[in-house]
Parts: sequence; C-alpha cells; structure tokens
Amino acid sequence: MSYKFLISDLNSQKRIGTDKGLAKIGDGIVNLTYSIAKSIYLTENSSNILRTALKVNKTILSNALKNAGMKNFARNRADAHDLANTVEAIIAYVFLNDKMTLNEIIDFLKENLSGNIQNRTLEIKNASLAFTNLLNYIKKFLPEE
Amino acid sequence: MSYKFLISDLNSQKRIGTDKGLAKIGDGIVNLTYSIAKSIYLTENSSNILRTALKVNKTILSNALKNAGMKNFARNRADAHDLANTVEAIIAYVFLNDKMTLNEIIDFLKENLSGNIQNRTLEIKNASLAFTNLLNYIKKFLPEE
Repeated sequence: MSYKFLISDLNSQKRIGTDKGLAKIGDGIVNLTYSIAKSIYLTENSSNILRTALKVNKTILSNALKNAGMKNFARNRADAHDLANTVEAIIAYVFLNDKMTLNEIIDFLKENLSGNIQNRTLEIKNASLAFTNLLNYIKKFLPEE
Repeated sequence: MSYKFLISDLNSQKRIGTDKGLAKIGDGIVNLTYSIAKSIYLTENSSNILRTALKVNKTILSNALKNAGMKNFARNRADAHDLANTVEAIIAYVFLNDKMTLNEIIDFLKENLSGNIQNRTLEIKNASLAFTNLLNYIKKFLPEE
C-alpha cells in the first residue's frame, strides 16, 4: 500500500524538516538502513560475516545537511541535534512518499561508503559523505520551498 | 542487491534465533515496521494524521513467539528479553533472505492490527496477535530444524 497519506499535511521544506513524528520515524530508517549498509560494506571487505546495528552519530547527519546546503529545512538557530532530526525527517518523507524504498536507501548508502569506517573519526568523515550524497540525490523529491 | 550473503552462516533454527548481531538488526526492523504500521492504523481510524515511532514492548514479542509455538528457536531457559531477541532475529533473517520486503512487513502488521492500540494493556494484547500471525506466516521461510 502507499503511505503518502501519512505526509499529506507536510507541504513545505520547513514543515517537513521540523516535524517531530516524521523525525522519529526517520531516526528508525536512518539507523536501520545505515546499519545494514555498514554490515554489507564490512562483510565485503573482510573474510568474516559481520552483522552490526548502531545509532548513527548526529554529527554525521548534521554535517551532511550542511554539506548538501539544506539547512533551510531546519528551524532557525538549529543545533547539531536539530539538524540531525531534520535529516531524519527528510529521509522519512522521501520513503513515505514512495520515492525510494528502504532497500534503495540501503544500497545507495552502501555504494557511497568508502575507506575505513571502523575507526570512529574516519567513520564520521566517510559516512558524512555517504549521507551528503544521499541528500543531494533526494533533493529532486522535495518541495522547492 | 541481495543481502543473503549476510546470513549464509546461519543454517539452523537455533543459530538464527540466538544470533546477537541479527537480533540487533531485527530490533531496528521490528521497531520501524511496527511504528509505521501503527501510524497508518491510527491515522485510518482518526480524523488527524498521526506519525509515531516507538520501541516495541518485549512482552509483545515474547508472547508472539510462545503463541506461534516457536520457542525452540530461542536458547534454553530463555527469559522474556531473550525470547523478544529471538523474534527480532527471525524477522531480520526473513528480510535479509529476500522473503519479505520491509513494506510487506509493514503492510502485514497493519492488516493484522485490530481494536484499541492506544491503551497500553490492549496494545500488548492486539499487537501480540499481529506478531503471532506474522511468525506463523513466515514459518515456511525458516529451516525445519
């Protein structure tokens, strides 16, 4: 079934990017899709099968929103936590609006991961790039203002 | 892409049901899919759009495993927390093995929700039934021993 009716009241960048329920759903989407993408990436680059799940660091998400030039989706004077919530809400919006499936998000993140993601500092750098690329890709699915 | 290689080492009911990494991935799947199913269900039965996300109560999941007669997937002398982890691992296995998409899990849970799920006690009862039905449905995708 289509889930579009769950977002039919959200018709501007600011309403999407500051909706709390949408950000909560997006939090689950971001953590799940990144966890599976990371499991695939690590397994492909190892002789063992690695299954992992984690909470994506808010610095990764806030970096991505800034790098993609999309801070206008967030509330004024947003801190890193607010910016991360905005990324989560945007990704939930795109999923609920039938523009990307969860598998497509997993595959996109996995294809855009590179380098070392087992070292915490390098993971923040490399995962920020993957989420920046995702935000740049999904811009076309979002309202223009 | 297919994610089957992430579970190629898990070839028995016990190995699937007691794998910690798989349970962690499943925790994200269960919470996300139930949250969206609950949002759809509440929105369809209300004049407002409700977007919610939550952690599924472990009693719901442990009830479902017992009701579906699948405690043999769990470790011996498992408590409710272990049984819930086993349900999460089983659901992750079915998803990673390409047997159900995340949208299919959302739609299945939503179709199997009934009655009041805003009262905590009734939600435990009604959501336990939805997860029991899901486990009964996916039995055919699992190893026979």
